[in-house]
Amino acid sequence: MAAGPRLREFQLIEHVRRLFGHTGPSVILGIGDDAAIITPPPGRHLLLTTDLLVEDVHFSHSTTTYEDIGYKAAVANLSDIAAMGGAPHALAVSIAVPRSMNVADVTRLYRGLMAACRPYGVSLIGGDTSASRQGLFLSVTLTGYVAPGRALRRDGARAGDLVYVTGTLGDSLAGLRLLDTRMRKGLARRDIQYLIARHHRPTPRIQAGQFLVARKLATAAIDLSDGLSGDLAQLCEQSAVGVEIDAAALPLSRAGRAYAVATKTDPIQLALRGGEDYELLFTVPASKRAALDRFRRHAGCRLTPIGVIRPKRFGLTLRTSRGDVLPLRNTSYQHFSSNG
Amino acid sequence: MAAGPRLREFQLIEHVRRLFGHTGPSVILGIGDDAAIITPPPGRHLLLTTDLLVEDVHFSHSTTTYEDIGYKAAVANLSDIAAMGGAPHALAVSIAVPRSMNVADVTRLYRGLMAACRPYGVSLIGGDTSASRQGLFLSVTLTGYVAPGRALRRDGARAGDLVYVTGTLGDSLAGLRLLDTRMRKGLARRDIQYLIARHHRPTPRIQAGQFLVARKLATAAIDLSDGLSGDLAQLCEQSAVGVEIDAAALPLSRAGRAYAVATKTDPIQLALRGGEDYELLFTVPASKRAALDRFRRHAGCRLTPIGVIRPKRFGLTLRTSRGDVLPLRNTSYQHFSSNG
Repeated sequence: MAAGPRLREFQLIEHVRRLFGHTGPSVILGIGDDAAIITPPPGRHLLLTTDLLVEDVHFSHSTTTYEDIGYKAAVANLSDIAAMGGAPHALAVSIAVPRSMNVADVTRLYRGLMAACRPYGVSLIGGDTSASRQGLFLSVTLTGYVAPGRALRRDGARAGDLVYVTGTLGDSLAGLRLLDTRMRKGLARRDIQYLIARHHRPTPRIQAGQFLVARKLATAAIDLSDGLSGDLAQLCEQSAVGVEIDAAALPLSRAGRAYAVATKTDPIQLALRGGEDYELLFTVPASKRAALDRFRRHAGCRLTPIGVIRPKRFGLTLRTSRGDVLPLRNTSYQHFSSNG
Repeated sequence: MAAGPRLREFQLIEHVRRLFGHTGPSVILGIGDDAAIITPPPGRHLLLTTDLLVEDVHFSHSTTTYEDIGYKAAVANLSDIAAMGGAPHALAVSIAVPRSMNVADVTRLYRGLMAACRPYGVSLIGGDTSASRQGLFLSVTLTGYVAPGRALRRDGARAGDLVYVTGTLGDSLAGLRLLDTRMRKGLARRDIQYLIARHHRPTPRIQAGQFLVARKLATAAIDLSDGLSGDLAQLCEQSAVGVEIDAAALPLSRAGRAYAVATKTDPIQLALRGGEDYELLFTVPASKRAALDRFRRHAGCRLTPIGVIRPKRFGLTLRTSRGDVLPLRNTSYQHFSSNG
């Protein structure tokens, strides 16, 4: 643990406010009063999401720096706003700090949080701090805005819709395994670095979500926090539909494929299971495929069709490269955590 | 611990949604999607506050039921909205659940949360859940609304303003000591019950806060969570003023006075130190005293003038019943916690 002053009573909020409490014009009152005051843009609906990160459940300090913990906590929330097609706005952070952390550690954590938020102009407007007799607990709440009736919900997918994902799948899980096992034989250094960076510094797909809303292209969306097979099951359940996923279409990165080869991992299973990719899974009516293709450069990332929504009785299925249609099992990570 | 089924993955959010996820007309989408969607009232500013409760820091399960823990967590947030003069609106609850808690315990905790919120029509719109390898962590975020420019901030007190408090002071601390020490000699049963109820089930002064805003009576306000001497110091620091408090004016309940007598506690110190009263401390220009007196029945509780704001160089002082003016020491509870 780096040297630094011990946390003392009442200092932390003021320290954080001074370093990170710069607020934009739509924040009337930030950190330091009984509540923050922000001005909602006229006519917009308010989005609110909150994620809880618990030491030794969601992260291990042995493989993750405080800056990375903060970064990922922010991305988990930014990704939720992205999955609604919204614009993120203001952040509140509650943190229970164990004795092992000093002021420099807490500062690193907030630096990571704000680094993830900076590209989107998100302001830190409040929070709460406490000592913890046990591990680090971090609860992050993020607000955002979306035009009325335009948010991407989980319950709008219809039979015949095409299923898409942003980016590539399984990179974060590969990165985590590289951190945990330290078995890196047969992998190029840049691939290792890429996969670990994808695990520690995932990209929230804010631009892609806003693109889908602006062009009215998607019927439903969810972000991939637990893993494709688990999050897809959520979307299908809430939309009361089935699905057929094309195994050969699942997008993997070059590094992800190299990892699969080097570790003798099935790349399809890596893509289906992999959690914390923070990509978006969304559904598009077949009639809008041409529009999606025409404007896809505005999404800011790769968009890949990976299957089609089926009626509910069809169930959740995977079409293999040999043409077999198998039940799609939920192999995603389940740490007794779900947000809403 | 009461018998009940163990918590299983993914069940908790659905269980909570079914029991407590009833939403009002201004909630478009509640628990269960990536984010909640709510509709801000046109032209209002949004208030947001968040409080963190940590087992063995903020509460001890040995003297507090899960229902009371939930109730007080909600009141801590409701009281913050009250201190801004706002109307509370929507609640998000994140909870890290230790193995020792079962579904019935978690249900009790949410029942307490919602019991505190029900009088104000506050909807539960989301949250996050996780296992905890250690104690119970509870992070509650509450939104509210206030008319632009009308919120009661901490930084508006001016020399000459009168200092008021709602209700009575020190009851919650007396109740806590009765729970902790179990020394109850010389106290009537109804006084004991009253003080313990004031500790476990404090009243957020929502009506009083809204009254002050509606009549434009207050220049500043803060809620008494840490205790009068500590919270008053915060208000004075943020307003850059001093204060003179009249010891004889501090309002104690009949039960609070009986406790002071029975335990040989100085009632003035009880009132100055006592935390978690969740009363409001506010400042009123002398020119508005008559209006305050005329309309005070709309506040929904007792309002007591306890002193006057002085210039900053005057410092924080206490005028004793003998007429001496002494420095006012901060004797409030400080558990390394401050919210904003």
